[in-house]
This record gives sequence, C-alpha cells and structure tokens, in this order.
Amino acid sequence: MEAIGITRLCHRNLLPTTNPSLTSTFISNLVIGRTSFHNYNTNFPKFLVSATMESSFKPEEARVPAELSLPAPPVTKFKIALCQLYVTTDKERNIAHAQQAIEDAADKGAQLILLPEIWNSPYSNDSFPVYAEDIDAGGDASPSTRMLSEVSRSRKITIIGGSIPERSGDKLYNSCCVFGTDGKLLAKHRKIHLFDIDIPGKMTFKESRTLTAGERPTIVDTEVGRIGIGICYDIRFQELAAIYAARGAHLLCYPGAFNMTTGPLHWELLQRARAADCQLYVATCSPARDGGSSYVAWGHSTLVGPFGEVLMTTEHEETTLIAEIDYSVIEQRRTYLPFQKQRRGDLYQLVDVERLNCTGAK
Amino acid sequence: MEAIGITRLCHRNLLPTTNPSLTSTFISNLVIGRTSFHNYNTNFPKFLVSATMESSFKPEEARVPAELSLPAPPVTKFKIALCQLYVTTDKERNIAHAQQAIEDAADKGAQLILLPEIWNSPYSNDSFPVYAEDIDAGGDASPSTRMLSEVSRSRKITIIGGSIPERSGDKLYNSCCVFGTDGKLLAKHRKIHLFDIDIPGKMTFKESRTLTAGERPTIVDTEVGRIGIGICYDIRFQELAAIYAARGAHLLCYPGAFNMTTGPLHWELLQRARAADCQLYVATCSPARDGGSSYVAWGHSTLVGPFGEVLMTTEHEETTLIAEIDYSVIEQRRTYLPFQKQRRGDLYQLVDVERLNCTGAK
Repeated sequence: MEAIGITRLCHRNLLPTTNPSLTSTFISNLVIGRTSFHNYNTNFPKFLVSATMESSFKPEEARVPAELSLPAPPVTKFKIALCQLYVTTDKERNIAHAQQAIEDAADKGAQLILLPEIWNSPYSNDSFPVYAEDIDAGGDASPSTRMLSEVSRSRKITIIGGSIPERSGDKLYNSCCVFGTDGKLLAKHRKIHLFDIDIPGKMTFKESRTLTAGERPTIVDTEVGRIGIGICYDIRFQELAAIYAARGAHLLCYPGAFNMTTGPLHWELLQRARAADCQLYVATCSPARDGGSSYVAWGHSTLVGPFGEVLMTTEHEETTLIAEIDYSVIEQRRTYLPFQKQRRGDLYQLVDVERLNCTGAK
Repeated sequence: MEAIGITRLCHRNLLPTTNPSLTSTFISNLVIGRTSFHNYNTNFPKFLVSATMESSFKPEEARVPAELSLPAPPVTKFKIALCQLYVTTDKERNIAHAQQAIEDAADKGAQLILLPEIWNSPYSNDSFPVYAEDIDAGGDASPSTRMLSEVSRSRKITIIGGSIPERSGDKLYNSCCVFGTDGKLLAKHRKIHLFDIDIPGKMTFKESRTLTAGERPTIVDTEVGRIGIGICYDIRFQELAAIYAARGAHLLCYPGAFNMTTGPLHWELLQRARAADCQLYVATCSPARDGGSSYVAWGHSTLVGPFGEVLMTTEHEETTLIAEIDYSVIEQRRTYLPFQKQRRGDLYQLVDVERLNCTGAK
C-alpha cells in the first residue's frame, strides 16, 4: 500500500492553519456572533488580549468562548465529606440515615457534603418511577430534598445532594440538587449522559428505558467555591469537565454508582484524568456496596487533587470520608504546568455551546 | 453569599440549547463554510444523516467536522515493538544501537516499531542544536532517518521513528518520522506542544529556549493502520487525541521522555486516559533511564488497549517489548460503550480546525 497521511494531503491542498483570512472568518463566526471583530478586542478581559499577543498559537481560542480566569473562592481551605451510604428499599430509612450521616459530618467540621448517586432508592429502572419525587413542587412531594434543605440551613453547610429519581410532568430524571447554607436550592443538575451500556455477560443497563436526559451543564457558585456537577456516566465525557474548567470551576463533583465491571476498569482512572487534565479538584461519591441488590455498586468514593493525585479514598463499605481541600493548590499546579497558555487554539477548539449563545452568563 | 449558578443565570436570559435558529446559524457557520444548509444534508456521508435522525442531542455534532467512521485497517492483528533504548552522547553508536534493536524486533515478528523521544541525542537544550539533522535534505545530512528508511525497507516494517532534533533553515524542531515498508517517509510530526514546565525544586525545563513548535497534527495511514502521532508533552492535551480519534485513528503513538517527577505522577495515567476516552490503542516509548544524565527519563514504555487497560509495560532499564495488537477490540469496546452516539453535540463541540478548513482531506 502506498500510504499517505491525511495531514500531508491537506497540506498539498491548503494551508489552513496559516491562512489568516479563513481563520479570522471562522473565529469571528464562532466567538463574536452579532458583534464586530473590533468589539471582540475591546470588550474581552484584558488578560485575554495579552495572551493573544504572547503567542501565535492562540491558546485563548482553544476554548470558545475563551476560558475564564479562576475566580477567587469565598474560602481557600475547607473540609469536604463524602458520605458513602448504604441504600435500602425503605425510602424513609434512607432519608433519615442520610440526614444522620450529614449531621455527623457537619459535627466533624465538614462545610461541603457530597452524597451518592440515587441514595434514596435502589438503583434500578423498576425503582426509579416508584421512588421518584417532584423536586420543583417540594414539600411533601419531595421529602428527600426537603431534608437536604433543612439540614443545610440548620447546619449552615453546602450540600451536593447526590442524586434521586425526579418526576417532572410525565418525565423522570436522575437529578442532583445543590443546597446553600441558607437551605435554598442553588442548582439542580439532571444527568446529561444516560447510562446505556451493554457489555455482554458482564453489565447491561439502559437508563433511557425510564429516564430522560438533562438539557444543560450545571455549574454553581457556592460558599465553598465554584462547583461543576456531573452524575456518574457524565464523568466519561471529558468535554463536560473541560467546559466546567473553562467556566472557572474549582471543584467537580460526581455522585456516581459505577459497578463491578466498570468500577475496577475506569472509576479511579476517569476521576484522576479529569482532575489532571483540568487541573482542579474532583470528588466522587458512590453508594456503599450491597452484594444482594440487582445492581452492585463499586463504592470507592474518592477525592482527587489538581495533579490527578488521590487524596482520599476507601473500599466499598459504608463510611464517611472527610478531608481538607486547599484551592491555593490549583493556581500552583497551573503555574507549574501552564496548559492555559500552551493549548493550540490554532489547531483545536472546544466550544461550550450554551455559554457561547448565552451572552448574559459572564 | 447568595450564590447563583451560571446555568440558572443563562436559563433566565436565553434558552440557547433549545433555540433552533441560534443553533442552526452556529452550526452552519462552523461546518458549512461556503455551502448552504441544504448542501450539508445532501453532501455528508449517509451514516451521519441517520445519526442525526436518531437523537435530538446531535452526537455527530460533538466533533466538527463530524467523526469519521473507523476505517478498515490493512491488518487486524499484528505485533508492535517498543524499543526502550539507552541513549549515549555518541550519535553514531546511538544509530547503530537503534538499528540493532529494530532488526532484533523485526526478527521476532514485529511489523510496527516505535522508538523513544530523542533517541540519537542526549535530551538537553545544549545537545539539540549539536545533534540536529536536516531531515528534508536527507542522505548524509540525516544519518538517523537514513538508517530508519533503510531498515524499514530491508525488513518491510513500519517504523514510528521516535524523535530526533531536526534542523530546518534556522529553526530546530523535535520531530518524529514515520517510514513505510518501502522505506519511504510517510509523515513527519513536529512536536506541537513544547515542554515548558517549572516545578520548583523538582523539574524545570524549557524546550522553547531552543525548539520551535510544530504547526499541525499528524495522522498517517500505514500498513498497520491509521496512526496519530504525538511527542511526549503532546499527550497532555486531550484535544489532540480526540481529533485523531475523530479522524479515524486506530492507534496513537507517543514517543516520550517523562521524568522522575512527572513520570510517576502522570505517565501511565495520561496514556490510559487517552485510550479509554478515545477507545483506541495507545503506545508510548521512552528512552531507558540514565541516572547520570542531566535529564533523567522515567522509562516505563507501555501499550494500552481501548478500555484503558495496560497490556504491556516495563520498568526503566533498556528493553524491547513486543505484544500483539488486535484492532477488532476497538469496534467491540465502542459497541459496549457507544460514546459516539452518546456525546452531546448540543452542549459541546470539539473543532478540528485543520480538517474543518481542509475540504480535500476527507
């Protein structure tokens, strides 16, 4: 075979990366939308303009819109708790049990609590409709989130409420509610990437049999920093983590219930990869393992630092892990390995479609 | 603090992800360039059109241009050799030594040989100008690549020639040459992301003091499949791996010399992450460790399968690793975890700038 590289074929026909008119038109269409190129230069933050001057490789264009600088968090150091809860078929017990774990963690100084994926219900398509709650209606229609709201207010803590099955009209979602220290619902993330996999003889599950996928990413400013939310299978899509990083996230939280097949293969790998690639903290929280349930969770809730280093992890039993997060490490790591200045916006660009279209966001 | 999520702010102002006119305009600008939206539907491959019909989440738009289907490789199973070579200050010796290792591997049935980063020279900014060769001139001006060409032809093997310092006019590059079974140069990759890091007291290196960065990705059709090339620090940028995957790569090859700081932290993690996220094979090849050199390489050349599983690895001594690659595993893994159908092109899009502008490529 006379093999010829794609790149060399391209090179013969065009010089795309060095053709300023093509590139300008493209970037103009992408970034500017309804404004002129002149407005682009004058309206964007100054650090972007200087970055542009520094390099012909256009690192700031590797994210569209350009990456935000890391915001100053309300606190630099704080304690996070991962409550790896044992989940039963008794919803009332699950709620009371979760409340006890949260309060115990708060007693130990945790300011941020992360719960597991589907902590009020067994993880099965049969259970989701039965255990689902109407979160938007609240009150008696959602005893699980009512508890989270009450305990976050009473203990003045931030809660990333794992996830529960949510009923909204005739649809069901896998939803994570974030509560602030005043008990208010700050954000609700509906799992974007549904868990539909088929590994014959090992693991087959189709969430889409019962659930509907969420429509947007969720990143939220809390009293413990800017936090991007994903649920379980969402962690497999590096693009989501990268757009959260570009929106200035300090921490990504993934409630997740990997299983006995994908858990040993990928659970730790994916957390460490997202943390190291995005240079931020990643926290995960799984249900404790119940060998007798139809879906057996892997466990191994973990906190990973911005160098991809495992800071805290566990096996599969019920436990609450508590560790300190120090956001000053993020800036330090980004100084050591300055990816933001080194990306090649002249070669690849990751577009955050919502933020591109949402001029009011930042 | 009354914290409010970015997403919720967006949501109040606009409904970007559900606004078809905005999205259509955007995609039209991105993908179509000078053609109409009608042409988009009629000119694109049929599998894309059917994928579009399948989902409102537009998975095919998560890559721009759309991801190519995996090409049928010339061989499904073959042996790859990773030659983890000990490198000295004697260039002639390095060339003869590499040739011997390649021939030994070919004798053992290897059809694809991967060499380390900077295998003909010490890894230092002082050495790069001294050991650099004019690859384009060839012959006596590049004894290292002349050897690679000769041995690839005589043994009818494909060689991913690690990298050597390249002199081109008044510039130096860190360049990887790919030779086909007929001895012809199929592609030359110049390291895109230069290794400029500063971890105080641990590892400081600035390739940009002497080297110039390459201008484009390099993916090449060989007799052992479609191979994307990166050199060392290139592996840190997940976008490069993802655009290679979208161009139909079966295998990514990264000659690389991580060090005693970044090696234990990230070398295996990054290889496994690129393989698992892109669902393809990843091979790396490091120089053997020389504790007495100014830059001490980590070693640990590795082959990773498309589930992120380490198939073959080693410590830091000189050795040649040989293992079988089976490309049929790629399709199998992608059936198990069908990321291509699950990505959310309505939320994020990775743009391959060169392929977007290079209409002749595919």
